[in-house]
Amino acid sequence: MITLHNLENSQSIRIIWLMEELGAEYEIKHYGRAGPNGMAPDDFKKLHPVGTSPTITDGALTLVETNAIVDYILDQNPNSALRPKAGSVERVPYLYWLHAAQGSFQPLLTDTLVFKRLVSKTPFVLRPVIRLVLGKAEAVLLKPRLAKILDLAEETLCQSRWLAGEKLTAADIVMGYCLEVAEVRVGFDGKYPAIEGFLKRMRARPHHKQAMFKNGLFDPIAD
Amino acid sequence: MITLHNLENSQSIRIIWLMEELGAEYEIKHYGRAGPNGMAPDDFKKLHPVGTSPTITDGALTLVETNAIVDYILDQNPNSALRPKAGSVERVPYLYWLHAAQGSFQPLLTDTLVFKRLVSKTPFVLRPVIRLVLGKAEAVLLKPRLAKILDLAEETLCQSRWLAGEKLTAADIVMGYCLEVAEVRVGFDGKYPAIEGFLKRMRARPHHKQAMFKNGLFDPIAD
Repeated sequence: MITLHNLENSQSIRIIWLMEELGAEYEIKHYGRAGPNGMAPDDFKKLHPVGTSPTITDGALTLVETNAIVDYILDQNPNSALRPKAGSVERVPYLYWLHAAQGSFQPLLTDTLVFKRLVSKTPFVLRPVIRLVLGKAEAVLLKPRLAKILDLAEETLCQSRWLAGEKLTAADIVMGYCLEVAEVRVGFDGKYPAIEGFLKRMRARPHHKQAMFKNGLFDPIAD
Repeated sequence: MITLHNLENSQSIRIIWLMEELGAEYEIKHYGRAGPNGMAPDDFKKLHPVGTSPTITDGALTLVETNAIVDYILDQNPNSALRPKAGSVERVPYLYWLHAAQGSFQPLLTDTLVFKRLVSKTPFVLRPVIRLVLGKAEAVLLKPRLAKILDLAEETLCQSRWLAGEKLTAADIVMGYCLEVAEVRVGFDGKYPAIEGFLKRMRARPHHKQAMFKNGLFDPIAD
């Protein structure tokens, strides 16, 4: 049986939601963040050499990296519609959104938070210089790229209920977290009604509600 | 037939190498970078709303995002050993390295380059402050995370010829590029002999040589 090592306020909420959608049996072990920077505790970091969240164990296996865990779990549920079959209409948008979430969108969201923290942690007298340089970098490097992906998600969700078609897939589970983070960290300013509709549908799903309940407090701001 | 829109000095080298390993038929259309910042040209950016490299077209379909393209191509080659089957011994390390390459390792490498460029593009009088703050951020946020993944790759490659076992997989193709970039951008200082052996084996493969030839000049420094 899979154990999800659930680090507080982390990307592992997606794995709980995935397991709930699958109706799979699993255990959750909770780990609170500690210290002024909200670091993962030592017993969490010791689970895997890389020490990131989400982490699962399954017998002797320990696995990290969100999409590796998603694919590993879906391998065990080969008939689930959460991973459209090769050759289906849903397959290409599924592959795009699953991989773009982690390969493009999440890194940009992480950099947005890193830049913000670099400014706030710089000593007061040096802060204006750092704000100037990182503000420009955010405007040139991060925001336009985030906007392109958000625009494409908006266009996609104007045409279909979920990102890969009319049925929920693992791409929605992975992107759903990213879009929640983007809503808080980037702000939508009313420009993305279809994405807001997606987030509403996501939060209304009983399996998502159950996942949030099992996860405990979830705060996508985390700053 | 698939057309790879090959942006000069970009991550699309991996798709050429993948196609060569598969012995698949495909076309390459080359796009040079332009301007002082080496931007992608407009005719490349217009191919897809997100405008990133690699980009492929296949009939009416246009697809971006490295791992989405890798999975799409492997869907068309279902019996290839480049994607180990679910349940095989090779499957779990395959999933880890394929996803970690794009979800963790490449974003850290990109940030290393971004930080370096932010320093070099800051006006001379402000540069020491920016160097101080970003140097510390690199030391705390980027280098330890890069080292953990490199350490794990080294350990893995001490035990097997390729990252997922004795046979080359698409995870090696995706990580191979990252490791070449890391060699130049992070530096190995003789600490990673097994990774250096991997890169040597990679470069010695006839299909890789053919890919480099078809790609034209490849410069992983790109700064």
